[in-house]
Amino acid sequence: MAGPVGVAVVGASGYAARELIQILLRHPGVRIATATSRQDERLDALHPSLAGRIDLACEPFDADRVAERCGFAFLGVPHTASMAVVPSLRERGVKVIDLSADYRLKDAKVYEDWYGHVHSDPAGLAEAVYGLPELFREQIPPAELIANPGCYTSTSILSLAPLVAEDLIDRKSIIIDAKSGVSGAGRSPKLTTHYPECNESLSAYNVGRHRHTPEIDQVLTTAAGGGESVEVIFTPHLVPMDRGIFATVYATPRKPVAEHDLIELYRLFYSASPFVRVVSHLPATKDSAYSNFFDVAVRVVRGRILVLACLDNLVKGAAGVAVQNLNLMLGMPETTALL
Amino acid sequence: MAGPVGVAVVGASGYAARELIQILLRHPGVRIATATSRQDERLDALHPSLAGRIDLACEPFDADRVAERCGFAFLGVPHTASMAVVPSLRERGVKVIDLSADYRLKDAKVYEDWYGHVHSDPAGLAEAVYGLPELFREQIPPAELIANPGCYTSTSILSLAPLVAEDLIDRKSIIIDAKSGVSGAGRSPKLTTHYPECNESLSAYNVGRHRHTPEIDQVLTTAAGGGESVEVIFTPHLVPMDRGIFATVYATPRKPVAEHDLIELYRLFYSASPFVRVVSHLPATKDSAYSNFFDVAVRVVRGRILVLACLDNLVKGAAGVAVQNLNLMLGMPETTALL
Amino acid sequence: MAGPVGVAVVGASGYAARELIQILLRHPGVRIATATSRQDERLDALHPSLAGRIDLACEPFDADRVAERCGFAFLGVPHTASMAVVPSLRERGVKVIDLSADYRLKDAKVYEDWYGHVHSDPAGLAEAVYGLPELFREQIPPAELIANPGCYTSTSILSLAPLVAEDLIDRKSIIIDAKSGVSGAGRSPKLTTHYPECNESLSAYNVGRHRHTPEIDQVLTTAAGGGESVEVIFTPHLVPMDRGIFATVYATPRKPVAEHDLIELYRLFYSASPFVRVVSHLPATKDSAYSNFFDVAVRVVRGRILVLACLDNLVKGAAGVAVQNLNLMLGMPETTALL
Amino acid sequence: MAGPVGVAVVGASGYAARELIQILLRHPGVRIATATSRQDERLDALHPSLAGRIDLACEPFDADRVAERCGFAFLGVPHTASMAVVPSLRERGVKVIDLSADYRLKDAKVYEDWYGHVHSDPAGLAEAVYGLPELFREQIPPAELIANPGCYTSTSILSLAPLVAEDLIDRKSIIIDAKSGVSGAGRSPKLTTHYPECNESLSAYNVGRHRHTPEIDQVLTTAAGGGESVEVIFTPHLVPMDRGIFATVYATPRKPVAEHDLIELYRLFYSASPFVRVVSHLPATKDSAYSNFFDVAVRVVRGRILVLACLDNLVKGAAGVAVQNLNLMLGMPETTALL
Repeated sequence: MAGPVGVAVVGASGYAARELIQILLRHPGVRIATATSRQDERLDALHPSLAGRIDLACEPFDADRVAERCGFAFLGVPHTASMAVVPSLRERGVKVIDLSADYRLKDAKVYEDWYGHVHSDPAGLAEAVYGLPELFREQIPPAELIANPGCYTSTSILSLAPLVAEDLIDRKSIIIDAKSGVSGAGRSPKLTTHYPECNESLSAYNVGRHRHTPEIDQVLTTAAGGGESVEVIFTPHLVPMDRGIFATVYATPRKPVAEHDLIELYRLFYSASPFVRVVSHLPATKDSAYSNFFDVAVRVVRGRILVLACLDNLVKGAAGVAVQNLNLMLGMPETTALL
Repeated sequence: MAGPVGVAVVGASGYAARELIQILLRHPGVRIATATSRQDERLDALHPSLAGRIDLACEPFDADRVAERCGFAFLGVPHTASMAVVPSLRERGVKVIDLSADYRLKDAKVYEDWYGHVHSDPAGLAEAVYGLPELFREQIPPAELIANPGCYTSTSILSLAPLVAEDLIDRKSIIIDAKSGVSGAGRSPKLTTHYPECNESLSAYNVGRHRHTPEIDQVLTTAAGGGESVEVIFTPHLVPMDRGIFATVYATPRKPVAEHDLIELYRLFYSASPFVRVVSHLPATKDSAYSNFFDVAVRVVRGRILVLACLDNLVKGAAGVAVQNLNLMLGMPETTALL
Repeated sequence: MAGPVGVAVVGASGYAARELIQILLRHPGVRIATATSRQDERLDALHPSLAGRIDLACEPFDADRVAERCGFAFLGVPHTASMAVVPSLRERGVKVIDLSADYRLKDAKVYEDWYGHVHSDPAGLAEAVYGLPELFREQIPPAELIANPGCYTSTSILSLAPLVAEDLIDRKSIIIDAKSGVSGAGRSPKLTTHYPECNESLSAYNVGRHRHTPEIDQVLTTAAGGGESVEVIFTPHLVPMDRGIFATVYATPRKPVAEHDLIELYRLFYSASPFVRVVSHLPATKDSAYSNFFDVAVRVVRGRILVLACLDNLVKGAAGVAVQNLNLMLGMPETTALL
Repeated sequence: MAGPVGVAVVGASGYAARELIQILLRHPGVRIATATSRQDERLDALHPSLAGRIDLACEPFDADRVAERCGFAFLGVPHTASMAVVPSLRERGVKVIDLSADYRLKDAKVYEDWYGHVHSDPAGLAEAVYGLPELFREQIPPAELIANPGCYTSTSILSLAPLVAEDLIDRKSIIIDAKSGVSGAGRSPKLTTHYPECNESLSAYNVGRHRHTPEIDQVLTTAAGGGESVEVIFTPHLVPMDRGIFATVYATPRKPVAEHDLIELYRLFYSASPFVRVVSHLPATKDSAYSNFFDVAVRVVRGRILVLACLDNLVKGAAGVAVQNLNLMLGMPETTALL
């Protein structure tokens, strides 16, 4: 009988990687067999919270070593670094769950426009499955390369999918006013995330040009079953808190709608999704923090549809959904290690 | 030669009152002659930060005493408590700057609908001047009763006034996604503002039914010069920080607009307003905190106009604008004690 | 074959109770069979983070009902409320883990002095076992009534136990400068824990008269093997963060000591304790937050011993150690549901 | 008649410099004539909060230019950079208020031991006056070079000066457990002050080796009138808040003392110091934040003296005391621009 499958954490120094390691340590089906990082350090030196949990030192990336020990690799490296290693892993039969943005956009040209680089692995791009189980649960189990969704995008897409799937709203009317905790900006120190700069402050950033915009457009257009493109206005804000993304979404219905019908629609749409909670109260990021839940409420105000939703950007927005994808690929219950 | 004029702080225990007292202590034209509070305490017992600054104990409210000592009264009491004392002060010749919501809505019926009480002083309501100097600078000097604007409303109105004054936008298209620090909720402890509840959390509240909505509608319709009513969608959010309101405003232009023309319009519109800073970068609440400035930026995204603006809710959103009004009524420079 | 044992959560509305429920939901050996609260509400209405996790409504306390369904009761009610229900539960054969302070002090007179009430269950007091597994691991399995330690006390005692057990320090020289996150103050709103009061502020409170003082004295004197009483100076501070207690402990050694010998002593003393991490770096509360770990470092500065230690007040300081105690009583691995 | 004196801000990009500029803009006796920074930017680009307040671009440092325009220079540059420019300024007759650590330690050897550099200006070191007005008010007016005290040191020294001046305590018994907001760590981004690292966390740092230690020892020994050296144990902690230092100080009295006698002593000792508030309640950093006040309370617990004190590290701990020194040097009231 097979024991737990070996998994690699490639790029182990960031916040999503740390969260992932903590989840994987509770997972009965896997064993962290190797971790890589530019810093040649023990995992518990990179992340003191892991002291006493795992006895492993990071190694430089080596595709052969990963393939020898692991059936799966989670990539926690930045975009462009991902597409530099994915082909070598896939050639060696390692299944990849990529937490970077490299395989999310189907069109290499759109990738180039928004990320400023030519995509070096268009073949991988064509085969990658977008790892949002709530929408693509059937396509994930057989996949060999998963593009794990962005945190803002998961929040936005899950907020709007029922409305576009039922073609209830004007596809050019969508405004997503998103608010994120600071861990979403990563672990590299910079002035904008220096504590005395962002603490006690709220501001918008990348207005009209955040890279999650084309990802939201693309997946919602798919969720709509094609036809006219969805084009959202997406405004991210930085909020003085560690974790959590909150999206306040505004959309103009094609025809008048009743709030309770919408709520019913959401409950039905997500009835098979164990991590979506359609709540009747207004959600707060704190109630979904440190969990893999996505909480969502729907309101109608002066004829406009408002969706208010949140999740933990490091869990449901990154490491948690990555493990959801892993569970589906392993044929294990979707909630394994996530409750 | 007359010395400084006596002023009263009626309702001295809250945050706006404390901020007001700190500003007034730097003001060369006034002297705090009396302060009232239900708690019969010294000001520096109510507010330890005032230790060594002012030697005054609160007294119960007495209109005769106020009139004897003071030319002006600032009201820091809750709505309904304001209209209970305003007539007695005005009868005695005391000019009133009311920080509550009681005199902001011109229509007593609208007040009743949103506040759930009959208005007991409709005559006062008719005479009150809306104390937003940037829009009503001419009407404030002779006024005897000033309705000091709400913090969300000032942010919202100043964000939109140039656009509606020039009739550039669809008046039913306006979305105001507003984010506020917790001091905006007042000083009475309740579960929603208990530290471990709201810290590290962001949520929306009073969606579609916040009482600042009709105030925004009313003043913006006035600013538009009448005609079709402005009807905004206003969504307030609670943010884990002490101070600051940030508004992200979305509006559909009547015809295509250029970003630089809008910026020019804003600069021109506010050229005589010393506390409005039309900035080219994206503003952050921290840069206007502890100041009387309103910072605003304008962008065009996918054909929609975005206004991003912020102020300190206790200063420009409450105590600071109250002193701006006082300065205008005293014929002193508008910036006195505010820089 | 017996299934999971039924457990009761008596007093389910507070933070420690919520944390406890979340841990118990992951526990393979128990089932939450009843929960009580003065508010007659569903658990997920009291705690929205529990939505989708447990389908249970709180009931009024009824000892018979608890006894019928449960082998164990966790008490999350305030002191005095605990001792009012403990005898009725014990008479019915329910084992009790009491998170209040009611059974921690061995001497009813000391209880009365510090809590201002006569103790109504001195028999229970005599039999209660102090539930700090790191010191009293042998006494816990057979116990019928566990006095779960206070959060400040656990931090303080675990910081000092090796030093007093080896009689290395002057027992009257101990200073414990403790810093706590705000959740330690409970869930009832009050001015001192109102967000705009305690955010961005640090202060000391209850200087020289915090009720955890006699508990620390008593347990450390026991740990010293009796003899001269330990008498600590304990100074608690409120820190603007949700969770975590940090103790900076100063003690005068009886004779000169070497830092590395002390570190060795701590490692040995806690070698059988899976939740104590003797670290070589300086610990930070964040690294033990949301975990059941106690992190501790030792230094010698100018001849004085400094111990720097931290834990999560709601987990290792309350709900987590309660489950550690439960595990010992059930004969299950001490770490069950806690990693 | 002479107009306002020109002052230079040398090193204008940091937090203390920004605070200083804001205070100087309210000061009737001075005019900011030049500002320097390695970044060749406008002040309001470096500090967006200064938008609309000052129209000045930073220039590279040039001693001749400073001397031409200014009577005073405030140095906001790091240690070693200060001593590199001080002699050139003094040669040209510019009085210097140095906010760095370069001129605080009287003994060049002690400087070298703690800062790891040889001191390049021992002559300046010998002449510098330690700019703590509460202790050295007489020596400041004629000084030509002021060593502005460190933030931790001011807090510590003011907490203990009355006790050592009266020789009431054992000079080797002093423990200073200090807690600082994050702005004290400066404006250069690093991992330890990256928001998601230090938010929601408390930790100690530089235990036993913080550079403010010898400064505290030296000044307290001076305050004691010489004799046996004071040797403190100083433990700094990083607290998740922007501003404020809180010191909890423990000292063993030479003979038993009464709390009320100590409070009386403190009131008397500081009776001529307008920025010291001896309070009877326990102080909180928030009450002194954004002010130049130092708040202090005294307690006796189990025979030990506890002093609990706080100030704003950027104001009373840096820019505010610098202006206090300036006021004394200008012969203006000590409180000018500081209330």
